[in-house]
Amino acid sequence: MGAQATIDGCQYANWSETIFRQMREGAVDAVVATVSYHEDFRQTVANIIAWNRNIERYPDLLMRGRTFGDVDAARASGRTAVFLGLQNPLPIGDDIGLVEILHDLGIRFMQLSYNNQSLLAAGCYEAEDSGITRMGREVIAEMNRVGLVIDMSHSAERSTLEAIELSRRPVAITHANPARWHPAARNKSDAVLKALAARGGIIGLSLYPHHLKGGSHCTLDAFTGMVADLVSYIGLAHVGIGSDLCQDQPDSVIAWMRNGRWTKGATDLGIGKAVLPPQPAWFRDNRDFGTLRDGLLARGFSMEDAAAILGGNWYSFFAQSFGHVPPPSSSSAANTSQ
Amino acid sequence: MGAQATIDGCQYANWSETIFRQMREGAVDAVVATVSYHEDFRQTVANIIAWNRNIERYPDLLMRGRTFGDVDAARASGRTAVFLGLQNPLPIGDDIGLVEILHDLGIRFMQLSYNNQSLLAAGCYEAEDSGITRMGREVIAEMNRVGLVIDMSHSAERSTLEAIELSRRPVAITHANPARWHPAARNKSDAVLKALAARGGIIGLSLYPHHLKGGSHCTLDAFTGMVADLVSYIGLAHVGIGSDLCQDQPDSVIAWMRNGRWTKGATDLGIGKAVLPPQPAWFRDNRDFGTLRDGLLARGFSMEDAAAILGGNWYSFFAQSFGHVPPPSSSSAANTSQ
Repeated sequence: MGAQATIDGCQYANWSETIFRQMREGAVDAVVATVSYHEDFRQTVANIIAWNRNIERYPDLLMRGRTFGDVDAARASGRTAVFLGLQNPLPIGDDIGLVEILHDLGIRFMQLSYNNQSLLAAGCYEAEDSGITRMGREVIAEMNRVGLVIDMSHSAERSTLEAIELSRRPVAITHANPARWHPAARNKSDAVLKALAARGGIIGLSLYPHHLKGGSHCTLDAFTGMVADLVSYIGLAHVGIGSDLCQDQPDSVIAWMRNGRWTKGATDLGIGKAVLPPQPAWFRDNRDFGTLRDGLLARGFSMEDAAAILGGNWYSFFAQSFGHVPPPSSSSAANTSQ
Repeated sequence: MGAQATIDGCQYANWSETIFRQMREGAVDAVVATVSYHEDFRQTVANIIAWNRNIERYPDLLMRGRTFGDVDAARASGRTAVFLGLQNPLPIGDDIGLVEILHDLGIRFMQLSYNNQSLLAAGCYEAEDSGITRMGREVIAEMNRVGLVIDMSHSAERSTLEAIELSRRPVAITHANPARWHPAARNKSDAVLKALAARGGIIGLSLYPHHLKGGSHCTLDAFTGMVADLVSYIGLAHVGIGSDLCQDQPDSVIAWMRNGRWTKGATDLGIGKAVLPPQPAWFRDNRDFGTLRDGLLARGFSMEDAAAILGGNWYSFFAQSFGHVPPPSSSSAANTSQ
């Protein structure tokens, strides 16, 4: 059943009943919703509470997603399962104990860094990248143990390669595209994509205009051409969708995503003003997953392969990623001075 | 008057009336007391409140130190002025606005990192050091503006050199020794010490056994020999004392300093078990500043030079460091993508 599911690996919409209904119109069975960028632990809990309220208020449209089986349950009942993710490790601060706490609260993905250096890894907009830190090594082992997926979407190259190497479980890049198609700082090198796939990981391909060749003017044909190229060199099983839809967000939120509260100035990412660019006409919002499917079929993908890309691969990844797995030996968590 | 003051640039004692009285016995006019290692903002405020209670309770022994003039006031009234410092930037988290808030609360020193990678800089026990981060550059400018001293005692080499270079105001290393005397990870290279001094900075020499050649068995003669050597290559004005006294702390606190809450294991710094080593016999605690003075005189320092090392240099540094200074131009805080 899950092989037919439609799953989006990353969205950060200004959530509303309108959007929840559009998810049903697009038959989106599951979505990974970002619950924090620059929030600390307490603020993150407040954002989880806000999701609990949404789910309580719209029981016919939504349910919480915690296990891969929840995708089936959502699909069977005509709802969307909302899985929760963090784009920044700030909610755990310097406290490794919060990894398990956040997993208990339903968080299933956590980026090791967001654009900047974190306590764990470098971000993709840092001038330098010294890889995974002392604390980062500990946190990777703990995330592996409890079943919190390591997401390297906004991390720097070396940090990403090291995370893939250090992690005992497959890593995700929930929302990005190949840099060889569109060389943005946020898109990923061949080396990263190949290493990710070699260790069983998955990339959610992004529909955010800054990640697209041609930006808002990118054509569906150009996008599916990129998908076909990517599948040819990392394999079908490692490719999904992570639309990075930021639907209905005001420009102030886009500026906040970039600036957080770490600077008193305005952050220039080299990608223009902090305004939400228009979506490509063929992927306005959740209603257009069918258009994406049509595009993949037109590109020559089989129905089965298109379904794998649109959700089946995420389903398989969810199935192996969210459960508790004991560490390989009792001494594995010991850390050493360097 | 300040040229004769006795000032200790760093202590983290298990504070008590006994210790406050020992500070008077040793004629310590001012001390920089660490208020946090692994605490967040709210916990740091709680620790400041604890100091307010101490000062309210022992008005004949203590006063808060906020300006260099408070050293004179303490000296004139036979009390010790307690200045506050942070050994970790965790209390500001990702919020640059907290730099000014903490200065308003009386914090006068902040380390950019403590052993590990922070959001600002690498720590001295990280395997890699990629220097000052994007946020770190912003925070240095803000600390310069409000008069919060940059302390690089526990930071890594490259990060330290970059901080000295980026800072418009002199930088401190409140507690460490020269690595060429005792090559511990926490001690500082010639390159760092020369750069520090060239930009008007100061080092507080440490009496913590792990920073001493021979550890607890280090002799006063060996220590003053190191002081004479250091003065010969960076100049008298850049040398003070930062004893790093952790008097009466239980071993559990020493373990907490190393492990914080970033690891589930026990941190090996390559310097043995997490127990407080015995102080050298000639520097048991605050009562022994006179012994240190005698040692410097025996080494051949003049009364005037010994006084500079024991507090006069810190006094001059305090005088230029704690006030507000406008940034060089209104556009200086703008940041750019890298």
